[in-house]
Amino acid sequence: MEKKEAITINGAGLVGSLLSVLLARRGFDVEVYDMRPDPTENQVWGGRSINLALSNRGWQALKKASVTEEVEKTAIPMKGRMMHSTSGELTFQPYGKSGQAIYSVSREGLNRLLVGKAKTMKNTHFYFSHKCSRVELDKQRLTFKDLLTEEKKKVHYDYLIGTDGAYSKVRLAMQRKNRFNYSQQFLEHGYKELRIPPNANGDFAMEPHALHIWPRKQFMLIALPNPDKSFTATLFLAYEGAQSFKKLQTDEQVSTFFKEEFPDTLELIPDLLEQFHRNPTPSLVTIRCSPWNYENALLMGDSSHAIVPFYGQGMNAGFEDCFLFDQLLEQSDIPLCELFDAFQANRKKDADAIADLALQNFIEMRDLVADPEFLLRKKIEARLNQLFPEKWLPLYSMVTFSHIPYSKALAIGKKQEAVMDRLMKMDEVRNNWQVMDFTGMSALDEYFGEEQ
Amino acid sequence: MEKKEAITINGAGLVGSLLSVLLARRGFDVEVYDMRPDPTENQVWGGRSINLALSNRGWQALKKASVTEEVEKTAIPMKGRMMHSTSGELTFQPYGKSGQAIYSVSREGLNRLLVGKAKTMKNTHFYFSHKCSRVELDKQRLTFKDLLTEEKKKVHYDYLIGTDGAYSKVRLAMQRKNRFNYSQQFLEHGYKELRIPPNANGDFAMEPHALHIWPRKQFMLIALPNPDKSFTATLFLAYEGAQSFKKLQTDEQVSTFFKEEFPDTLELIPDLLEQFHRNPTPSLVTIRCSPWNYENALLMGDSSHAIVPFYGQGMNAGFEDCFLFDQLLEQSDIPLCELFDAFQANRKKDADAIADLALQNFIEMRDLVADPEFLLRKKIEARLNQLFPEKWLPLYSMVTFSHIPYSKALAIGKKQEAVMDRLMKMDEVRNNWQVMDFTGMSALDEYFGEEQ
Repeated sequence: MEKKEAITINGAGLVGSLLSVLLARRGFDVEVYDMRPDPTENQVWGGRSINLALSNRGWQALKKASVTEEVEKTAIPMKGRMMHSTSGELTFQPYGKSGQAIYSVSREGLNRLLVGKAKTMKNTHFYFSHKCSRVELDKQRLTFKDLLTEEKKKVHYDYLIGTDGAYSKVRLAMQRKNRFNYSQQFLEHGYKELRIPPNANGDFAMEPHALHIWPRKQFMLIALPNPDKSFTATLFLAYEGAQSFKKLQTDEQVSTFFKEEFPDTLELIPDLLEQFHRNPTPSLVTIRCSPWNYENALLMGDSSHAIVPFYGQGMNAGFEDCFLFDQLLEQSDIPLCELFDAFQANRKKDADAIADLALQNFIEMRDLVADPEFLLRKKIEARLNQLFPEKWLPLYSMVTFSHIPYSKALAIGKKQEAVMDRLMKMDEVRNNWQVMDFTGMSALDEYFGEEQ
Repeated sequence: MEKKEAITINGAGLVGSLLSVLLARRGFDVEVYDMRPDPTENQVWGGRSINLALSNRGWQALKKASVTEEVEKTAIPMKGRMMHSTSGELTFQPYGKSGQAIYSVSREGLNRLLVGKAKTMKNTHFYFSHKCSRVELDKQRLTFKDLLTEEKKKVHYDYLIGTDGAYSKVRLAMQRKNRFNYSQQFLEHGYKELRIPPNANGDFAMEPHALHIWPRKQFMLIALPNPDKSFTATLFLAYEGAQSFKKLQTDEQVSTFFKEEFPDTLELIPDLLEQFHRNPTPSLVTIRCSPWNYENALLMGDSSHAIVPFYGQGMNAGFEDCFLFDQLLEQSDIPLCELFDAFQANRKKDADAIADLALQNFIEMRDLVADPEFLLRKKIEARLNQLFPEKWLPLYSMVTFSHIPYSKALAIGKKQEAVMDRLMKMDEVRNNWQVMDFTGMSALDEYFGEEQ
């Protein structure tokens, strides 16, 4: 392995730690800084939500880091959505074909695993408890405060990759440069996490192999399983308005709301009121910017494209960044600065597409999945996929179970929507979709013609 | 006039100075700060482009400030676009009906006039050469540096209105608050201003009552007349690419470019090369944000909605902000904070619409106006307006010569576009538009039906 340039990474979260493994494998000298303490030496690791849905794009990148076997040990497959109606009725909708699933993984556990893996490689160097206080792009210099010694350090970098999240310090320095396009858009909804403990038998309190959704049109509750047989439930609700966090101030307001909207959760969360008042109510932001690079600095993951969590693709998109960057390194021997440019020029449209898809999917999750018409549509789409596996891959499957670029998936998804709008108006289809062969239908034939 | 609250305005540019007049008229105690020296005492007043197109929305607001007579003395009516082809051929396209025009005014002159007007009112107080260095929204406090004495001053405000432009300090303070939506998008084009002096006879070197355009698809040159019989020409061109500022570095490159693209300007700008190298190449940005208010602070004009200049509506939109805010003050006696809220809740959609329209119009100006098909379309639209003056007002006229909210104009414009797409395909229309009465046509009847 020939000696290569030194790359400095700011942020040892999921994307930064995976990236450090991939870059070290290619022979780069990798220095990684993070303000948090070393997760391999600490059980509590700051950060955001507790569990995440890992899907194919993420797995593909983890494979390159040779950690999939280890991840599989605790990952819990979720084969579909389990919808909970107000009366407690359950409806299951599979995510894809038999055998396909998304996987609930612990953010903290996965991060610890990746940092641990990177630390076994001799050309990585980790600096934890180092808070980045200044980024000087033109001087290629970072300033850190060592939170343990209170010491200030100035560090030179040859190349810098900012994997420091939605509120990135590296991006902030780029924002001060001329002609940097930037947008931050907040949802009117915030979220609150609530833990559903194992039941009295020490087992999962609900079906573990599903992502649970309580769709209530303008808001929703979801729950993902954890390895300790608890679930992490998350309430997504507007901050203000008729039904909002603002209207959930007193014990009585919270109790009444859950009794009316999510009655089947009351016995699952015995300490609901305590958790509700104690846990914070963070906001949900979509961040877009361009360009992602400035001379020998590059943004990756949330720092360049933070998205809302409703497609379960935030981490997966960040991991795919790492995968694609690594692929570029493999296929090309152009200088790193040009590689940074090529990476962002190719990837930006896909980051924009998954940002749009994630926003759209909020409406699907909180509202449409409770609509029988929508569920029929999804069943017909699944049938089309079964009949024409090469020609009709539903949008959710393209995003979740394939490596089709997000922008292409979005474009195909729009065409499919137009086809489905036509099919859903046909009585023939509505009544016979389970037995008909869907041949000789102009709506479909036109679509198949275009896609070939 | 009863004594009212004190309002502090940061920024004495066009919007800030007009606003100070309107607020003082309503009895508010108005304090205005600006980093630049007093324009009424100085001939050189920093800021942006030299002249601007004033149209109906702007006039309406100036009327409230009783300054229209004074403005009319130097405003130069431009009745339409004068297109210059590469071979020097001229084509004139009127903006509206006979008698309608937009007016070229001097930014500096208008600003001086408005500050002068405000200073004659006893409840206004101006602090020039005061650079705002800090905005503390929760403490209701501003910090200024007096650029003449180098002294620092902390100033309390009861109410604050930020009219401090696209790079607003007040907005920057709002950006640090949670859940502030913000976007800055730069065009790939920059601009360069070039002065066309009066001709040898001391007269205008081209037709003065027109806005001159040299449309060249991906770029364009425009020119507006000034009271001293010069024109200010502006080249809009990409920073990078095949035809770009980057490719115009040497004397020879600049000369060749102008010779090929704008040959009729060569004798009009004798010192072209000197001006080209000396003058800066600023960027063009669209800024959107929300909310525009935070407790007792509000943004107005470019600080809340900076737009690109291609619809000639930046100043007009800012002046209309003042007009509408003043109208709210007149019609309502709710507390100012609630008024701030009502103002932004109602106005935001219109700011977004004019931002979109301005971006669209760049393509129209630099490309479409050179297309015979487009010019035919505009002529047919003018004919429809003549036949159905109440029912068909072309988009340009709605934006420029009416007070229809921008968002409504944009929506109607889209419907008109669909109608025109249909009409332009009919030979009957293409051949007979000058003589036919356009009755009994389903495309039009449907549109008229909807608009009534």
